[in-house]
Amino acid sequence: METFLQNIPSTLRPPAPVEIGRPLSTVATPAMLLDLDAFESNLQGMADWAARHKIKLRPHAKAHKSVAIAEAQIARGAIGICCQKLSEAYPFAAAGVRNILISNQFVGADKVAMAIELSRYIDLTVCVDHPAQITALGEAAKASGNRLTVLPEVDIGQGRCGVSTPDDLMHLVSSIAAYDMLHFGGIQAYHGGAQHNASWNDRKAAAQRAADATAAYVRYLDTRGVRCATVTGSGTGCAEFDAASGVYTELQPGSYAFMDKHYGSLEWHGDLQFQNALFIATTIMSTAREGRAVCDVGLKGLAVDSGMPMVHAPHTLQYIAANDEHGILEILNVDRHDRLGERILLIPGHCDPTVNLYDQFIGFRKNVVECIWKVDARGLSQ
Amino acid sequence: METFLQNIPSTLRPPAPVEIGRPLSTVATPAMLLDLDAFESNLQGMADWAARHKIKLRPHAKAHKSVAIAEAQIARGAIGICCQKLSEAYPFAAAGVRNILISNQFVGADKVAMAIELSRYIDLTVCVDHPAQITALGEAAKASGNRLTVLPEVDIGQGRCGVSTPDDLMHLVSSIAAYDMLHFGGIQAYHGGAQHNASWNDRKAAAQRAADATAAYVRYLDTRGVRCATVTGSGTGCAEFDAASGVYTELQPGSYAFMDKHYGSLEWHGDLQFQNALFIATTIMSTAREGRAVCDVGLKGLAVDSGMPMVHAPHTLQYIAANDEHGILEILNVDRHDRLGERILLIPGHCDPTVNLYDQFIGFRKNVVECIWKVDARGLSQ
Repeated sequence: METFLQNIPSTLRPPAPVEIGRPLSTVATPAMLLDLDAFESNLQGMADWAARHKIKLRPHAKAHKSVAIAEAQIARGAIGICCQKLSEAYPFAAAGVRNILISNQFVGADKVAMAIELSRYIDLTVCVDHPAQITALGEAAKASGNRLTVLPEVDIGQGRCGVSTPDDLMHLVSSIAAYDMLHFGGIQAYHGGAQHNASWNDRKAAAQRAADATAAYVRYLDTRGVRCATVTGSGTGCAEFDAASGVYTELQPGSYAFMDKHYGSLEWHGDLQFQNALFIATTIMSTAREGRAVCDVGLKGLAVDSGMPMVHAPHTLQYIAANDEHGILEILNVDRHDRLGERILLIPGHCDPTVNLYDQFIGFRKNVVECIWKVDARGLSQ
Repeated sequence: METFLQNIPSTLRPPAPVEIGRPLSTVATPAMLLDLDAFESNLQGMADWAARHKIKLRPHAKAHKSVAIAEAQIARGAIGICCQKLSEAYPFAAAGVRNILISNQFVGADKVAMAIELSRYIDLTVCVDHPAQITALGEAAKASGNRLTVLPEVDIGQGRCGVSTPDDLMHLVSSIAAYDMLHFGGIQAYHGGAQHNASWNDRKAAAQRAADATAAYVRYLDTRGVRCATVTGSGTGCAEFDAASGVYTELQPGSYAFMDKHYGSLEWHGDLQFQNALFIATTIMSTAREGRAVCDVGLKGLAVDSGMPMVHAPHTLQYIAANDEHGILEILNVDRHDRLGERILLIPGHCDPTVNLYDQFIGFRKNVVECIWKVDARGLSQ
């Protein structure tokens, strides 16, 4: 017997998970669903908030990695997008997104070459926190004749990237000034930790401390005759405070488009609130054990770094453990009927790394599939 | 100013991460690397072990999702592969892999249609633990004229899927027998938990208990005149015990090809041992904070469900926290020189969900890139 078959049709591949116009209940699971009414409400809410506070909106595409979603954000007034990685920016640049900030440091000749290539086509801004990054960019920009905007990052409490003294900041500003083809654009000032305080008042206070730290850097540069055209930062958890602070010139929230179990679990009682728009659809495929059900999505379809997903519907189940391809559900009430084949909607614990597991969003409205949007930058992490 | 650019070349996309034949140090990070010497030693070790114990080897493709790796396993004597999902099986079937076991339950007309389509081309075996699954498969097989082999799953201690009484097993066997186009092939008996005991002796004892439970089901069926041609199960942690048990007819390990930090942390002092073959290459891209370094891989390039990755080299760093795109490293000794740009090799905590984040393996030998293998079934979770 031959080991490998020879006469397999070259077209053999899994069927499409659904067709546009079909009921949501016909989507093959697991699948990543987008509630378009909630999603559009989130996009419009943030856009209106930014407009009301006369602050630019530059949503973070690391959350969605989707050209269609970037276009929806720009159509509502966003000035461009952030990306976290250079390779992530390529599908957006290729689609014609004009203005991209890489809100993260990068090192290496291959990365610098990507920045130079992108800057040939789009308005590219990059972040630095070390003079060596500036030297590499400056030499490459000079050699290529392409101009780049550069933002030093300042650490405003996150303790991750960014310089933490005015002297170090000024040293970066001077290093940038040494290259004609590098343009100092202002500062990147992001505090991820501040976004995640459960208490609304604690979040407000953390945002205030971060904004004060940011403002101190801006004032320091001002006294040295250096004006920050751009002061960029913020995220979903603090956007309402940061927009009103008067410190930032632009906001870079990402998760607000979708929300997730973690963000949904925070206390929200300000004027800016978001609805959960992102769901993972799954099917119960085994009910062998009393009081338990096993569904068809686990670690390969759900990021669990922020905890297990929440069951959105039905409410009589709780997702208690994720294996590679299995989700273990506890049946919460005394309703012991056999639930085999039942479809469940899960709200993932953390949207960004969950989205990165899927190749497409299946957008729906009133339980009908309306669109299928590619996750264009999935896996582009270089 | 127009919002979207019009004159972007349609070919604009990120550069290839590396070319074959180039030094490993030129691979763009983050990247998933495969040490081919270690990998081939792992494959050969398991193949030899199975041959020595006269047991069939059916490696689990859920770990690698790669046609090239399945072919390497089959070339060393594997009888075929396991997949965990039907859609996952398609790229392997399309490549001509003749014999595939779906070692997991599935429910729904769309899934049954996939099983029928696959069974048209390959020898497909599927698992069940509920009569309704058999009815759906049996009716579809009858309607299509395609024949399927069916294995009831028995719960041998995992407490997840599979029937847990002889009566329930016999009911499944009878249900299968009611359909001419379904063929009872034997039983699926897998205990994932047993694989992960840290102590070698505890693992051996757990494997023995699981094998005893499996043997009891086989004997029960035998007394009812039902012979199990196939008794399939086992995994990387217990393969050495299960091969020698005399209970199973085939082994379905997956992780052994790669290993990971978790499997590497177990006690191994038997005759069957594996080397770590899977690494994530990353670069330090920020060193702004004293005693810390930040590298360019986080949650989108590393599964952390089994803990943080281990730094393989250099040993003076420890990976302490994963953000979406950032890895936070602690500098362990007093060596405070600036490590910006330094390249690091990480051993991921858990190989299966880490592999599912990448589109390719970059295979190397003696620090030279030798091959680039596609993760063909990445994201195929339906």
